[in-house]
Amino acid sequence: MSDRLTEFREFRERMNARILELDNLEIRRFFALDERAYRDGALSSRTKELLGLVSSTVLRCDDCIAYHLIRCREEGLSEDEIVEALSVALVVGGSIVIPHLRRGIDLMDQLTEERSQ
Amino acid sequence: MSDRLTEFREFRERMNARILELDNLEIRRFFALDERAYRDGALSSRTKELLGLVSSTVLRCDDCIAYHLIRCREEGLSEDEIVEALSVALVVGGSIVIPHLRRGIDLMDQLTEERSQ
Amino acid sequence: MSDRLTEFREFRERMNARILELDNLEIRRFFALDERAYRDGALSSRTKELLGLVSSTVLRCDDCIAYHLIRCREEGLSEDEIVEALSVALVVGGSIVIPHLRRGIDLMDQLTEERSQ
Amino acid sequence: MSDRLTEFREFRERMNARILELDNLEIRRFFALDERAYRDGALSSRTKELLGLVSSTVLRCDDCIAYHLIRCREEGLSEDEIVEALSVALVVGGSIVIPHLRRGIDLMDQLTEERSQ
Amino acid sequence: MSDRLTEFREFRERMNARILELDNLEIRRFFALDERAYRDGALSSRTKELLGLVSSTVLRCDDCIAYHLIRCREEGLSEDEIVEALSVALVVGGSIVIPHLRRGIDLMDQLTEERSQ
Amino acid sequence: MSDRLTEFREFRERMNARILELDNLEIRRFFALDERAYRDGALSSRTKELLGLVSSTVLRCDDCIAYHLIRCREEGLSEDEIVEALSVALVVGGSIVIPHLRRGIDLMDQLTEERSQ
Repeated sequence: MSDRLTEFREFRERMNARILELDNLEIRRFFALDERAYRDGALSSRTKELLGLVSSTVLRCDDCIAYHLIRCREEGLSEDEIVEALSVALVVGGSIVIPHLRRGIDLMDQLTEERSQ
Repeated sequence: MSDRLTEFREFRERMNARILELDNLEIRRFFALDERAYRDGALSSRTKELLGLVSSTVLRCDDCIAYHLIRCREEGLSEDEIVEALSVALVVGGSIVIPHLRRGIDLMDQLTEERSQ
Repeated sequence: MSDRLTEFREFRERMNARILELDNLEIRRFFALDERAYRDGALSSRTKELLGLVSSTVLRCDDCIAYHLIRCREEGLSEDEIVEALSVALVVGGSIVIPHLRRGIDLMDQLTEERSQ
Repeated sequence: MSDRLTEFREFRERMNARILELDNLEIRRFFALDERAYRDGALSSRTKELLGLVSSTVLRCDDCIAYHLIRCREEGLSEDEIVEALSVALVVGGSIVIPHLRRGIDLMDQLTEERSQ
Repeated sequence: MSDRLTEFREFRERMNARILELDNLEIRRFFALDERAYRDGALSSRTKELLGLVSSTVLRCDDCIAYHLIRCREEGLSEDEIVEALSVALVVGGSIVIPHLRRGIDLMDQLTEERSQ
Repeated sequence: MSDRLTEFREFRERMNARILELDNLEIRRFFALDERAYRDGALSSRTKELLGLVSSTVLRCDDCIAYHLIRCREEGLSEDEIVEALSVALVVGGSIVIPHLRRGIDLMDQLTEERSQ
């Protein structure tokens, strides 16, 4: 099992719980809104996860990429579809995106391995 | 007819022609790659235009948003689908995206008006 | 009276109304949250407007800078306080911030002139 | 005691010393200016540290967030004030800020624990 | 003569004078440092202007690009050298850079025309 | 020998190989273009590596900085030249660049040590 995936999930879960217990209504509302934004609507949650993945990649946020890769696989998107979305992000965002592409593809491979176990 | 749309199209067309006649192979290859990246593949060009639109919005590039809005309408995406994609961009990118959202919706309305003429 | 100020206010007001009538709950909730975030709480709205101004400056968004400058003056912040906040933004964000500093100071001067009329 | 805090402080101190001994006047002047920018003036250093914290958060720089969190606690800002400043950063910068919010709150908790020892 | 060039130069000159008369030492020191940073040293001012041009392009700041293009021509850099520097910026920064490339090349052409008059 | 350098090189090499075996023509073409962009042309590869280094620094990408630092030393650029290029990046990009400057100078020192062994 992947250490990076395990650490990412544990830290994310622990800190999200901690943040939601802070006495701050704006943060709680933002988290609720963030969750709502990817639900089925005029666009499918499948398409929206791709939008989240590509946004995260051009903005170069490894944790956001990790989260949306996990969600993309849960939504049943294939490796080819994910890689093609990342190729759009690479062209839009340029070579500065490449280190995040490396870590993203590495994580995608770990997710594939995890599934096959 | 919209002045902003007309100006955008004319300047874009004129300068793209000028840039492609520069003696620089890397730029020409980049432009070719940029054009290829949105073609049908594992993902439809329709989905890829949404990826381009949302990337452009979170990176806050008005001209890129304008271009992808034009292409999204050409691909037959509805206003509801476009607005929902922009709502994902707003949540990902935050309030700093709002001025671009204003100009984007304004342009979307101009494109709708243009069509109905 | 300043053309840039008038245009900014009119376009902002018109497009905010247009956006809020779109059939998209996430966008409406985001706008409500954006409005709430600057209210008095543990920090005064005065301090929060400075936070908004400096964030907008390091993220280099002219319209956001314009909005928070207007709000800072409404909150009674002095020119010296505003300029000092902008000096922090300049050091954090670097010389890339300078064109926005120019336009920001120009707008601050227009706001001062408007008041004295 | 927190490993992340200890490592951050040691690396920062060691490398700042190394950088200031480089034969480069511009870098030394920049470091002096960076130190000056947060001193009491028209605004209190307390307010300026909040400006530094929020700028660092919307620009998504973990080390800068860590430094300003340490300084905010030294200036006597409360957890509620810090969290509210971070809520403004979240609304301005969007969900892409969340991983930095997680690490920031985690560090704030470590600073609180360190104090109580 | 180009309107955009004339306007850019006039506004820049007027606002720089205005900013330097503000009672803020940090801003004045930053402006002095910004001027020093491009002087001949271990690297020639010629090379440093290229560094300024490419930084401005990947950070997508039209006014900064305009300023460094003017300075690059003053330093005697050829169109081929400038275009090649911009091609590096395009590959690093991605397609999001293209609208700034269009405006940059347009300005470079205006500078060439201005010279030949 | 430096762990960070060794890890960076191994991960970069392994993942570049993995990425180039993906069935995605756009990504492969982008990688080829990225390699071409730094070759001798109107500008020397030496100057272009400095452009890559400064772009990477203002865009705050540690892995990109690491790569271009390695390449700059291979091109025979001196520490003084590299530090001066980084000082331009610091002035352009502001204090938010400092954590990347620390890690960059640390890596430059490791490269110097590696050579002297």
